[in-house]
Amino acid sequence: MTRPAPDGAASRVSAGRLAGDLDALGRIGRDDDGAVNRVCFTPAEEEAHGLVAGWMEDLGLDVSRDGFGNTVGTRPGRGGSGRAIAIGSHVDSVPRGGNYDGAVGVVGAIEAARALAEEGRVLVHDLRVVCFSAEEGARFGAPCLGSKAALGLLGPDDAQRLEDGRGVTLAEALEARGSSVEALGVADWVEGLDAFVELHIEQGRVLEDARQPIGVVDWIAGNRRLRMTLRGQTDHSGATPMPIRRDALVAAAAVVGDVDRLARRTRGLVGTVGEFTVHPNALTAVPGKVELSVDVRSADVVVQEETIEAVMEAAARHCAARGVDLEVDDVSSVAPVMLPSWLRRSLTDVARRFTPRPRVMTSGAGHDAAIMARRVPAGMVFIPCRGGVSHSPEEWASTDQIALGTQVLTAGVVELDGMLAGAGGRP
Amino acid sequence: MTRPAPDGAASRVSAGRLAGDLDALGRIGRDDDGAVNRVCFTPAEEEAHGLVAGWMEDLGLDVSRDGFGNTVGTRPGRGGSGRAIAIGSHVDSVPRGGNYDGAVGVVGAIEAARALAEEGRVLVHDLRVVCFSAEEGARFGAPCLGSKAALGLLGPDDAQRLEDGRGVTLAEALEARGSSVEALGVADWVEGLDAFVELHIEQGRVLEDARQPIGVVDWIAGNRRLRMTLRGQTDHSGATPMPIRRDALVAAAAVVGDVDRLARRTRGLVGTVGEFTVHPNALTAVPGKVELSVDVRSADVVVQEETIEAVMEAAARHCAARGVDLEVDDVSSVAPVMLPSWLRRSLTDVARRFTPRPRVMTSGAGHDAAIMARRVPAGMVFIPCRGGVSHSPEEWASTDQIALGTQVLTAGVVELDGMLAGAGGRP
Repeated sequence: MTRPAPDGAASRVSAGRLAGDLDALGRIGRDDDGAVNRVCFTPAEEEAHGLVAGWMEDLGLDVSRDGFGNTVGTRPGRGGSGRAIAIGSHVDSVPRGGNYDGAVGVVGAIEAARALAEEGRVLVHDLRVVCFSAEEGARFGAPCLGSKAALGLLGPDDAQRLEDGRGVTLAEALEARGSSVEALGVADWVEGLDAFVELHIEQGRVLEDARQPIGVVDWIAGNRRLRMTLRGQTDHSGATPMPIRRDALVAAAAVVGDVDRLARRTRGLVGTVGEFTVHPNALTAVPGKVELSVDVRSADVVVQEETIEAVMEAAARHCAARGVDLEVDDVSSVAPVMLPSWLRRSLTDVARRFTPRPRVMTSGAGHDAAIMARRVPAGMVFIPCRGGVSHSPEEWASTDQIALGTQVLTAGVVELDGMLAGAGGRP
Repeated sequence: MTRPAPDGAASRVSAGRLAGDLDALGRIGRDDDGAVNRVCFTPAEEEAHGLVAGWMEDLGLDVSRDGFGNTVGTRPGRGGSGRAIAIGSHVDSVPRGGNYDGAVGVVGAIEAARALAEEGRVLVHDLRVVCFSAEEGARFGAPCLGSKAALGLLGPDDAQRLEDGRGVTLAEALEARGSSVEALGVADWVEGLDAFVELHIEQGRVLEDARQPIGVVDWIAGNRRLRMTLRGQTDHSGATPMPIRRDALVAAAAVVGDVDRLARRTRGLVGTVGEFTVHPNALTAVPGKVELSVDVRSADVVVQEETIEAVMEAAARHCAARGVDLEVDDVSSVAPVMLPSWLRRSLTDVARRFTPRPRVMTSGAGHDAAIMARRVPAGMVFIPCRGGVSHSPEEWASTDQIALGTQVLTAGVVELDGMLAGAGGRP
């Protein structure tokens, strides 16, 4: 079996440069034990955007930040029509996360632009390298805030409503870094986009288990997220007989067990209690209050909704049985997204030049590409990560895997440019 | 049915002064919402000891602090033999606790000394008013550190071993307030003690439900306390299929459920998970680590031990089933204590002068009196508290209830003084 040689630009992709860039990024927000803390709207996220903007300037890109704070570098095409292809991902992380989720797609996009420049290849389309802000939902509960804002899907009301665990609203966080709620609206750089492609680690272990180095995404799972507050009564742990307790932790623990049980009932669905805070959190006090989050995800919106309903019913039952009051807040509701099949097929064909068996697969995690897909044809390229571990200091992908993903991204952009140049935007 | 008139000194007990003293104490470490934070070895606990020492000085007592930091004020008796009766309790609180647990016994003891002085009554025994430090186990896991230290039951090794949630050892906390580990040993004020009596809120609702205003304690329940660390694997909540997760929170939640279930199996036993901390505590991360405490208490040491064994077995099983590693640390093991029956009978007889039906009862909570009882005949007088609530900002007892308890304490001291004066220390 013979495959054509890789495209010229893709052959310019340098594993060494990718490793160097990723290493430089990884020094920002890193703990002594290797955990990465680049939570959105922190100085560490800002520093990472500054580093990426510097790389863009070194490449001669035209660099700007949009009203929300996404960093965008443009390499003009020869078409002159303002039509563009965007590539990129995000540099923010969860608390104590890793340096690959998002970061791989940003350094990969930078390297793709660099490889095109080295090859001396000018596309018909403008090429936009995008570094999104605030993709992770860890701080404000809702994910992909940067891509939503760029498409005009995040308004001043949302910015006032969303708040973090300390009561800081998104609006306040935006203003603290010099953006303003009034500046929210469709970003200029979104105009004229013919496609968006994101390179990302899988964050699961499907590719690793199957020994396939490249995945191309068909569906991106949706999610339903809740925050629950359970209020019982704080009591002395020695002097309060069991029958008269209103222990919020005992009720909350039953909810955790049910989320796990209900999620395991349906293949492909996942359910997680990730946030869980107990008050007063003292050895000798019966817990009076628990706050927790529920995150349910599936590529099947009906099953996703049924499961979240079952979780809410179970929580109400557990709380009622223990004299505990329950408050449920909706945090987010995202429908599953199907990425355009023509774009997926194009990326899969390109990937076959580099590996015999690219895998077409569902993404369990949400991504900026799922948001971008609402207005722009979007595609995603996955590479494996060790053990499928993500959102953890243990997150890791090899330089070879990252370089291969970047080659597919680079060749994919060239392919799409040719495909779309004469097609009035879409094939 | 006629009861003799209250003893002269007891009739001098002033509800107004008690309320005033308690109010002054309650301003120390109070949050906006009324929660009291006087955790041991904090500036708030120190300020409270200073306030109490000032009251002692106003009464002309001879005031000192022992090597651990307990504050003691002595009113010399006419016996001149160095024999003494001690009364008192503690002023430290759990985080976000109330102003009655401990504080009632301290202001009650101060008021008893004041009432004796006003009456012009000089006892045969020296009277020692004791304000213990660090009764609550909330910070270092082990309770009654001040009374243990006074009896020489807390050595330098313990002080190095015990540490709080931030890794500060008891030895470091002691040194930070000017004490030293080397100064630990039997306190001078313990020598010559013929009895110790502690007034305290019940912290349960037995007295309230039975409409009995005074309890006299026979047994003080013991306790067994553990801290568990459950280590699984932090993973992405969207991309990690349920079957391959190692979710530390799901395992820990099952432990919480079992502590509750096992405790409910045995009448009179209580079991509580009070501390519960989840890492990384992010909405989109499968929890990789949970730290929790287990507190089991009973007046029956065999049942207490059987229950803790069952909890440990259940935890090992839940963790093994979920691929989670379990580490268990023993925090404390306290056997139940029976208080001397002659002292209990004496206090009950005295209480009958004030109320027709004082209740002889078990204490579910541990107290400094249980420690003191190892070397000194000790007694306890309980008053009701509203709804049995304690270790909470909702903790409350009426001034009338506190005054009645203080009258029983005052008359009890006079009775014991007479009883013990001629008895070579014990009847």
